[in-house]
Amino acid sequence: MSKKKVAVILSGCGVYDGSEIHEATLTMLAIARAGGEYSIFAPDMEQHHVINHLTGEEMPEKRNVLVEAARIARGKIQSLSDYQARDFDALMLPGGFGAAKNLCTFAFDGPDCNVHPEVERAIRETNAAGKPIGALCIAPVILAKVLGQGKITIGSDPETAKAVTTMGGTHVETTHAEVVTDEQLKIATTPCYMLDATIDQIAQGAENVVKAVFSMIKD
Amino acid sequence: MSKKKVAVILSGCGVYDGSEIHEATLTMLAIARAGGEYSIFAPDMEQHHVINHLTGEEMPEKRNVLVEAARIARGKIQSLSDYQARDFDALMLPGGFGAAKNLCTFAFDGPDCNVHPEVERAIRETNAAGKPIGALCIAPVILAKVLGQGKITIGSDPETAKAVTTMGGTHVETTHAEVVTDEQLKIATTPCYMLDATIDQIAQGAENVVKAVFSMIKD
Repeated sequence: MSKKKVAVILSGCGVYDGSEIHEATLTMLAIARAGGEYSIFAPDMEQHHVINHLTGEEMPEKRNVLVEAARIARGKIQSLSDYQARDFDALMLPGGFGAAKNLCTFAFDGPDCNVHPEVERAIRETNAAGKPIGALCIAPVILAKVLGQGKITIGSDPETAKAVTTMGGTHVETTHAEVVTDEQLKIATTPCYMLDATIDQIAQGAENVVKAVFSMIKD
Repeated sequence: MSKKKVAVILSGCGVYDGSEIHEATLTMLAIARAGGEYSIFAPDMEQHHVINHLTGEEMPEKRNVLVEAARIARGKIQSLSDYQARDFDALMLPGGFGAAKNLCTFAFDGPDCNVHPEVERAIRETNAAGKPIGALCIAPVILAKVLGQGKITIGSDPETAKAVTTMGGTHVETTHAEVVTDEQLKIATTPCYMLDATIDQIAQGAENVVKAVFSMIKD
């Protein structure tokens, strides 16, 4: 049996303006440990903004999502415009504010957010091909927005849960490392740092959601 | 028994100009899984340079080591000048080119390198206090330079191994996830991405070197 191929979409490098680094790294580790192999993608676009992660303040500079995500990918990364659902068995979206600021505008517009066209295409094509999609932390809101339905979790934050419902999704409250799976839509989600979590809880969440995604891959 | 306290020194955020992100993240995970707790430090200094991790080329901008390392630390980080060996049970140095470009000048000067004064102080004070130090990837060369002795590994690269010897260390060749422990000096080292490794091999290496370090902590 050949290795399962999983595409991972990153949104930069750093929790406040890009991909959450632990979630991204531990998703990659979980895929490798489940016997799969990952390919990393990110949209080739300017970040919404750059946050100084020491002070929390905005920095007067510009960075590119693909270029910064390449730091997590050790240079092995492709533009999301090159993603083709037919080349992969599954798709994963780690969290971090980049998912809500760069991949879509949820951080600013809530349920009225726009999703980056390449992100929307990747999700729609993967879903249409009957292939599973996993999402961590805040990234599940993108699935709710694009699919307009589905049982998902973003943990227990009431406002975000309400936004999920407004976008057509069904929110299920969860705690650390729990996974919500919608077998019909083939999506699996877990809260990770949407809760006040420790790094070992993130590792467990990533492992669990990757297992759920792998269980929905057709042989 | 209270949790073991481990200080981790980062050198930026990204393999080519800072800390290797997987090594840093997986060292933090290994510390948590071993029942310890970590505090992250980095020198407050300008990076040697900024590398575009997509193209490998230098970018015409400046970034600060502490500010960028804060991305991996999710903002919970202190200037290395605040490190006091008495507050911790052990010290860990993940790798990445930042260890050889920012924490010292090994990438440019080889065995004649200079070590950043705060890094040298942290290593000397921890060693003098009889507390163990762990290092991954290229970071063991800093231990060889500062201590001028000790049995360490950087994997199997002949030129780097030779440099270790020139600096007074004894190099032991290793492969994936193997750890070399110098019980007398209380240092433990593992090659990680100094070899052409996969992310699960990095996780195993980080776990093994953290275990070796914890085994040398006095109760």
